[in-house]
Amino acid sequence: MANSNPILVDGQWVQERAGCDTFTAINPRTREPLPEVFPISDENTVNKLLAAAAAAAPALREVSPEHIATFLEACASNIEAKADDLVRWANLETGLPTEPRLRNVELPRTTTQLRLAAKAVRARSFCDPIIDTKANLRTMSGPLGAPVVVFGPNNFPFAFNAVMGGDFASAIAAGNPVIAKVHPGHPKTSQLLAECAWAAVQSSGLPRATFQMVYELPKEAGFALVTAHQVAGYAFTGSRRAGLPPKPAADGAGKLSYLELSSINPIFVLPGVIAERGNEMAAELFGSCAMGAGQFCTSPGVCIVIHSPQTQAWIEELKKQFAASQPGTLLSASAPNNLASSVSVLQQSGASVLVGGKPKTDGPYAFENTLLQVSGDQFLKQPNALQTEAFGTVHLVVVAWSFGQLLAIAGALEGNLTACVYTAKSGADDANYTALEKVLRYKVGRLLNDKMPTGVAVSDAMQHGGPFPSTGHPGFTAVGMPSSIRRFVARHCYDAVRPNRLPPELADDNPLGIWRNVDGEWTRAAIGG
Amino acid sequence: MANSNPILVDGQWVQERAGCDTFTAINPRTREPLPEVFPISDENTVNKLLAAAAAAAPALREVSPEHIATFLEACASNIEAKADDLVRWANLETGLPTEPRLRNVELPRTTTQLRLAAKAVRARSFCDPIIDTKANLRTMSGPLGAPVVVFGPNNFPFAFNAVMGGDFASAIAAGNPVIAKVHPGHPKTSQLLAECAWAAVQSSGLPRATFQMVYELPKEAGFALVTAHQVAGYAFTGSRRAGLPPKPAADGAGKLSYLELSSINPIFVLPGVIAERGNEMAAELFGSCAMGAGQFCTSPGVCIVIHSPQTQAWIEELKKQFAASQPGTLLSASAPNNLASSVSVLQQSGASVLVGGKPKTDGPYAFENTLLQVSGDQFLKQPNALQTEAFGTVHLVVVAWSFGQLLAIAGALEGNLTACVYTAKSGADDANYTALEKVLRYKVGRLLNDKMPTGVAVSDAMQHGGPFPSTGHPGFTAVGMPSSIRRFVARHCYDAVRPNRLPPELADDNPLGIWRNVDGEWTRAAIGG
Repeated sequence: MANSNPILVDGQWVQERAGCDTFTAINPRTREPLPEVFPISDENTVNKLLAAAAAAAPALREVSPEHIATFLEACASNIEAKADDLVRWANLETGLPTEPRLRNVELPRTTTQLRLAAKAVRARSFCDPIIDTKANLRTMSGPLGAPVVVFGPNNFPFAFNAVMGGDFASAIAAGNPVIAKVHPGHPKTSQLLAECAWAAVQSSGLPRATFQMVYELPKEAGFALVTAHQVAGYAFTGSRRAGLPPKPAADGAGKLSYLELSSINPIFVLPGVIAERGNEMAAELFGSCAMGAGQFCTSPGVCIVIHSPQTQAWIEELKKQFAASQPGTLLSASAPNNLASSVSVLQQSGASVLVGGKPKTDGPYAFENTLLQVSGDQFLKQPNALQTEAFGTVHLVVVAWSFGQLLAIAGALEGNLTACVYTAKSGADDANYTALEKVLRYKVGRLLNDKMPTGVAVSDAMQHGGPFPSTGHPGFTAVGMPSSIRRFVARHCYDAVRPNRLPPELADDNPLGIWRNVDGEWTRAAIGG
Repeated sequence: MANSNPILVDGQWVQERAGCDTFTAINPRTREPLPEVFPISDENTVNKLLAAAAAAAPALREVSPEHIATFLEACASNIEAKADDLVRWANLETGLPTEPRLRNVELPRTTTQLRLAAKAVRARSFCDPIIDTKANLRTMSGPLGAPVVVFGPNNFPFAFNAVMGGDFASAIAAGNPVIAKVHPGHPKTSQLLAECAWAAVQSSGLPRATFQMVYELPKEAGFALVTAHQVAGYAFTGSRRAGLPPKPAADGAGKLSYLELSSINPIFVLPGVIAERGNEMAAELFGSCAMGAGQFCTSPGVCIVIHSPQTQAWIEELKKQFAASQPGTLLSASAPNNLASSVSVLQQSGASVLVGGKPKTDGPYAFENTLLQVSGDQFLKQPNALQTEAFGTVHLVVVAWSFGQLLAIAGALEGNLTACVYTAKSGADDANYTALEKVLRYKVGRLLNDKMPTGVAVSDAMQHGGPFPSTGHPGFTAVGMPSSIRRFVARHCYDAVRPNRLPPELADDNPLGIWRNVDGEWTRAAIGG
């Protein structure tokens, strides 16, 4: 039997114990297993990871911001140097297109994110210093002081990878070691990223367990990891089914949990748009639904329209769009099965299939582009089942009888990452927009106008988050620097601490020249200067 | 049988159902029941509270900031108008001294807090707007959009009351309705506060279920309240025993939980202080331990010193301080029992009682001022048991053999709200301070130098929070405006939203003149202006 690929524990690439369970990744385009073998780790390894990460935490706290920034930048450069290999393996393991997706979009997004994290570390912009000169109280955000566990999803092998992705960059930027449990769908890609990151740890002289990596864990070992006394918390991106079960145990043990779970990203199409630019909008909607074969957290799963002859014609146009093109390759064998199951739930809850509805039985893993329809009456009878996420190019059109019913549907929505409202440029829908916004605003993190939700800019003003169950806390974002770093900090207050003992971020003379809130005003000036 | 006092449900002072369980408060100074009778509410009432609060939430979201600020200020004025009654009843129900404590310290603290919340609402200072002009992304904090449940503690009948206290002010300032479960130790005080708040709701025309109030709930009804689909989350201040059990269920249901639990607030006394100003420092320490009869969340429960003949003499001096004065009145009958139980745990874990150790059997509820001692060796053998909180004037001196052992003790501490380090003014302890700070910083929210932790300034730079188990999330504070309001908000992102539809906080011309982060810089300027 061939040796399985090594895991990274405490700065060593080590073989899992002989006889451990193993797995291989599958090429989604051929349905054939790829040649490399990867180990499934166990609680014994979990204990080693925890011990090493706990030892690295105090060492990492003492590392200067400049040093951490250098590490993050080295990570980005090392990824660029290995781009060909990374893109080739990610394509083999995920079926995502090499170009433009992997090479020209996701890889640069990942390196940009790392470099923005480095910039935030230098600017200390996530530290949010608040100084009360009269009370001599000074507070800033600093490291949690303990390891963070990161679980990566299947759909972004680079940008959300538990190694080198946004959570990894955020947690380390804040000064915490990371224990990465990558997604088993793309283990070789993850291993290559871990090699890049490990080279950066070495070249920048960071503690050797600044990050560690395993490919797969049984459920119990994952629970043990996120509830361990050594860890401060965890970040999880993926399905509700996988992400929610450990949360109560982890929360009860006092661990922070940041979950980015499912979202159906409703699109409200008001009548004026259908009259004004219905076909154009239908094409835009289909384009967003089909992007990445519908496997984005921000992929639109449902649109809400108001019944009329024009709306009926618009739905016909949308049908044409869904029927006209072949579906993209899905990430795994389970993807078409999950889609079939979701479509079945939608049908059993009263939705009718207008286009598609079936998995492809040969060629790449795929599921027909699928459009369903349901009445507003029916949606309001079974709102939960009809919000079942279908992670692919599957879209449900909800036809309300009236604007009043459309509002009721908005009110019945679960928490989502995004919602979009399309209204006429003429202003014909403006009064209705106002009424809808009052409901929708509290259902989602990001509200869009006349724009599709796919495409999440890496900006500090981005909110890639939302009310439960789209995430576990509506006050935080998983994308955008420095905002996403704010998930992994503690507030550190200095009360009457002697001036020579203050960290530079809080010293009177503001030696770093950073933005600080002093007595209620934001300033870069020194105090008393 | 006399009617019990009414609860406040959906803007009505109503009697609980006939035959409901009731309770009376006890005067801690006489051990006699007070005459008024209060109802214990049940799940039927919980359902009414939830329905009314859920209906109030969208209405409250539409209320202008000016209007909410007016309400908070009316609350403060109404408290001042009823100050005599409030102080009289709080004294009867809690035994806390009328003056200065209740009338001159806690009552003004409460009104100041409400007025600072009003100021924050007008300045929108908790909204933290972030604008990326290139990407046309704009994000700010807004209401959670659903009710918040607040549980008040026994030790601050005004300032932390579930009606009118910091959590109440914060949650409403953010725009969320409050369901208040007050502490049953001071029901009449709470009722009077609720009358003040209800008058403010009426005079300022807020939705009638902006806040509601019950006195007591059985455990199951409390669980039902914090896990209900209608609520966004809850805030709890009190003991770990009462506060932790609902957390996993609430978290699993996606509810935010902000817990402020126990803390033993370690005091590190380095050798130079004992040499330089030992007696003075001992008096300061005893004063802090005895303040409020030791019933503060920031009361020092443990000090750590290094063995020496001078240290032995210092402990003798501390013994004198503890022995010289009579203990203060405790809040309830359970307080001396709990203290006896905690002292017993400490003794069973190897600590010896130097002074006191027993409850007072007559007169006001009280427990002898109690000083215990344990060796550093023994502390490190049973660190958890020896960190048992004793909520009263009970203090444990841990005598380390060396500075190295003192560091190990710091490393074995649980998360705390505060830690204090006393060092010589001469600079003799400075090298040791540096080593100690590296460990201690990550154990606590607020780090103090040469100052006792009791006395929590209501400042935006305050951090009244800390790592688990002192609180449930180290990134938030329960005291200080606008910071404490940040617990009860969601981030609301506007992506390509038409300019005329943006809230004023995010509009280009910055009509409110508020601080905003625009393209990475803090400014009050208009965009493009």
